[in-house]
Amino acid sequence: MSIPLAEEASRLDLGADLKTAMRRLAGSVAIVTSRDADGLPHGMAASAVMPVSMEPPSMLVAVNRSAGLHAVLQLSRRYCINLLADDQHALLEPFSQSVLRAQRFHSGPWRDAWSEQAAPLPWLEGAGAVIECIVDDAVDYGSHTLFIGRVTDVRVDQAPVDRHPPLVWLAGRRTRLDLQSS
Amino acid sequence: MSIPLAEEASRLDLGADLKTAMRRLAGSVAIVTSRDADGLPHGMAASAVMPVSMEPPSMLVAVNRSAGLHAVLQLSRRYCINLLADDQHALLEPFSQSVLRAQRFHSGPWRDAWSEQAAPLPWLEGAGAVIECIVDDAVDYGSHTLFIGRVTDVRVDQAPVDRHPPLVWLAGRRTRLDLQSS
Repeated sequence: MSIPLAEEASRLDLGADLKTAMRRLAGSVAIVTSRDADGLPHGMAASAVMPVSMEPPSMLVAVNRSAGLHAVLQLSRRYCINLLADDQHALLEPFSQSVLRAQRFHSGPWRDAWSEQAAPLPWLEGAGAVIECIVDDAVDYGSHTLFIGRVTDVRVDQAPVDRHPPLVWLAGRRTRLDLQSS
Repeated sequence: MSIPLAEEASRLDLGADLKTAMRRLAGSVAIVTSRDADGLPHGMAASAVMPVSMEPPSMLVAVNRSAGLHAVLQLSRRYCINLLADDQHALLEPFSQSVLRAQRFHSGPWRDAWSEQAAPLPWLEGAGAVIECIVDDAVDYGSHTLFIGRVTDVRVDQAPVDRHPPLVWLAGRRTRLDLQSS
């Protein structure tokens, strides 16, 4: 398909403008994990994570089709969302860079990562919340797939949120919360 | 359909647990606007807003089917995401409470809200970013519909983000960012 030049240029501009706009969107960061057919753990850092509905309890994760986790999720149909606490920010590096893949589940207090059983997914001790899901629907759109997951298990950090705040990402970097004056 | 009692109780528990977990999810807040068949402006405060892909540039908004905006979006197939700046937090009250509906577009510097033309959607001067979309796909899941929108226009606040930070919501309340120490 040939796209008229003016139309393509305007589409490229919109993409650049949307990236700039997204630097105004603050949000939590999660590590989404799953397990492949051989039982090996997989995971990636993701900010495109949100609740869908409470009836049924459900979450959504947007995953790029070029990401290693994409093929794993399509097969396993299960994922675990680990909402990072601010003091876990060092985990982002191994879970964002493919050259550091081998270090991923050796960095941080991962539980059940190397389990002999197929059942439990890798989950992170000390995360703000850990939410396990079964994929109910997968919607392809553009470069990404939206994996809608029905929640099957939830663990929440027992420390108060102002004592153990979440990792917040804004404009491409970690941003601390001012929890005193709020 | 009758649901076994134990299963229903466990589903209710999961819903409550997921609500508790979502108090660990920090995020931006937007006012999503549209226009009904009579040209009247509609809007609601929403935190379930995220980018889907950059190819094509696209966003996603999850809207409860019981929300007034839901029927409007299904007909208009267009919406405008206004990412609130922290200094715009007073707008949340009218756009969250249906009894304050009449005040909505009289509170804050709304542009094109009462336009005679059908074309422009209401947009908020001074918002961190304003992103207009055409609905490309609408996916029903549970109590909500996911409106996937192809981006057609973007405006970004010219002030630096650390001078004019976004409104951030955490654990049911506004949370300030500590932009000095970050």
